[in-house]
Amino acid sequence: MKFLSLIFLGFVFNSVLAQSGVQQNRIRPVLVIHGGAGTILKKNMSPEKEKAYMQGLEDALRKGYAILEGGGSSLDAVEAVVKELEDNPLFNAGKGAVFTNEGKIELDAAIMNGKNLAAGAVAGITTVKNPITAARAVMEKSEHVMMIGKGAEKFAEQQGLTIVDPSYFYTEERWKSLQKIKRDDSLKMDTDKKNKTGLKQSENKDHKYGTVGAVALDKQGNLAAATSTGGMTNKKFGRVGDVPIIGAGTYANNTTCAISCTGWGEFFIRLVMAKSISDMMEFGKMSLQNAANEMVMKRLPSMQGDGGLIAVDKNGNIAMPFCTEGMYRGFIDKNGKMEIKIYKELY
Amino acid sequence: MKFLSLIFLGFVFNSVLAQSGVQQNRIRPVLVIHGGAGTILKKNMSPEKEKAYMQGLEDALRKGYAILEGGGSSLDAVEAVVKELEDNPLFNAGKGAVFTNEGKIELDAAIMNGKNLAAGAVAGITTVKNPITAARAVMEKSEHVMMIGKGAEKFAEQQGLTIVDPSYFYTEERWKSLQKIKRDDSLKMDTDKKNKTGLKQSENKDHKYGTVGAVALDKQGNLAAATSTGGMTNKKFGRVGDVPIIGAGTYANNTTCAISCTGWGEFFIRLVMAKSISDMMEFGKMSLQNAANEMVMKRLPSMQGDGGLIAVDKNGNIAMPFCTEGMYRGFIDKNGKMEIKIYKELY
Repeated sequence: MKFLSLIFLGFVFNSVLAQSGVQQNRIRPVLVIHGGAGTILKKNMSPEKEKAYMQGLEDALRKGYAILEGGGSSLDAVEAVVKELEDNPLFNAGKGAVFTNEGKIELDAAIMNGKNLAAGAVAGITTVKNPITAARAVMEKSEHVMMIGKGAEKFAEQQGLTIVDPSYFYTEERWKSLQKIKRDDSLKMDTDKKNKTGLKQSENKDHKYGTVGAVALDKQGNLAAATSTGGMTNKKFGRVGDVPIIGAGTYANNTTCAISCTGWGEFFIRLVMAKSISDMMEFGKMSLQNAANEMVMKRLPSMQGDGGLIAVDKNGNIAMPFCTEGMYRGFIDKNGKMEIKIYKELY
Repeated sequence: MKFLSLIFLGFVFNSVLAQSGVQQNRIRPVLVIHGGAGTILKKNMSPEKEKAYMQGLEDALRKGYAILEGGGSSLDAVEAVVKELEDNPLFNAGKGAVFTNEGKIELDAAIMNGKNLAAGAVAGITTVKNPITAARAVMEKSEHVMMIGKGAEKFAEQQGLTIVDPSYFYTEERWKSLQKIKRDDSLKMDTDKKNKTGLKQSENKDHKYGTVGAVALDKQGNLAAATSTGGMTNKKFGRVGDVPIIGAGTYANNTTCAISCTGWGEFFIRLVMAKSISDMMEFGKMSLQNAANEMVMKRLPSMQGDGGLIAVDKNGNIAMPFCTEGMYRGFIDKNGKMEIKIYKELY
């Protein structure tokens, strides 16, 4: 009888182990990242520049995925990715961010944890090396969700984050972009006066829409999203875009999906882009792909806005719609397959 | 034959007139306003103070409704209401707003037009007499949606808005509240160390959650929402709450409803409160009342947050749920009936 009991106990124990094993194995991590959407055309890109962008995206993907593979949290993964892209001067976030009309660099970032809807955001900061880390500190070390300007900088400093002189963020290319846009704008005003057609803003748009972001699903089934940006070149009056607005440019919810946006921020705010997609899934029972397409490929262009986003749902499905010419993007999906792309694909 | 034609033409003309008349008469304007939610208990209120609050709400309601009755836009009505409440030192917005930890007054406001999803918001401004007017200027006179800090102030000044010395917003009562909360907080920290229970924060909460807002449906069937606040007493580090976050504290969409929130802003941001309700209606086919109750009476308290909101849908239905002890609120409904209330009602 004792022997039989032991066999029975062993059976129960094994089946519990097996079940939890199945449970753990079932969730394969997923990571999706972006480096901004805009008028990115192959004809305007040198092979060297293209390679540098691809490499930058790959490095960030591998860094974030290593965390997920090691059993780390989606929150840690998206923060690590965005930090890497902030440090890369090619992308419009952290070092290499675009300049405001006044020749300053004002940074915005947000992070959200899909597990408990915790969120943190900073806007208009000029001295914190990694704005995404400041956003995470706001989420985890304060009772607030959003801090702006000098106050946010003071908080980041108190939290022991790396503080830099604003000149750290400077790159010559972005400075030239500002000068060019200012010239174009004054030229455009002259042209507008003459024939009301204006200049083509293709090059401006490219820079206007720079943003970096990441979304991830970890082995525990938790979703997270992170986004960081320097905003629009030549922005004025303390303008803040969609990036630090929870529900607009950044959102994560274990019930549905995690989303990070890039595009003409004003339209993303007015559409409350990310939350709309999550809600189409939660209340309208739509798939991630259908919901994302409805918002990015229909509602956004119908308002004359443009841009794109990356998203992953709780089952590891990926969506990366954009209605611009290109979007720097990459993913490692639930089968471990990595893809990195820049241009529009014709289906 | 000519005579018959004339009769026929007259008939057509009359029926067109009648139809447009019916159309115009069918939409009766609705206005709902709030002056903040919190621990507002009758036992803590003097009859004089209660009367002053009721009068303040009534004055604002009448001012806004006169605009709607005269065929004015919901946008004009909600701006006028919020301006009136900003000028009234009883409410935590504009004059009489609460103080930050540093003894400053930093104001946030947002406005949204349900007709075209246009929106404007300002955060952390200290010199514009009526922040709601600054938000409207951002919406209508700039290509941006959100401006913060000094930049927003500079824009408001350029737009010719009334600029005041920050001392204009000062009231003795709010200054005393800050001192009391600072005392309580240090006392609370001492108490926490001893018995971990802490002080009752009822009086703090009352001030913490102050906000003013208005939502309206006009005769043209357009919805609009406006919200303005001084934020939380003793707030630190450039904290921004839900008020200027489109989709969180302020949202309007002719397809669904217009909403203005008041409460513990951090939770309203994390829940993307207003847009969630709109989306439950749009994608989940829920009624305004059911959607608002689901968010305010279930999801908000389940996260340990609290507060309330006012809402009107495209058919003129009103919802005013709150999970606090009270909410300063009032409406004039589609039958022209006015009601003003402060405390919780037991059903």
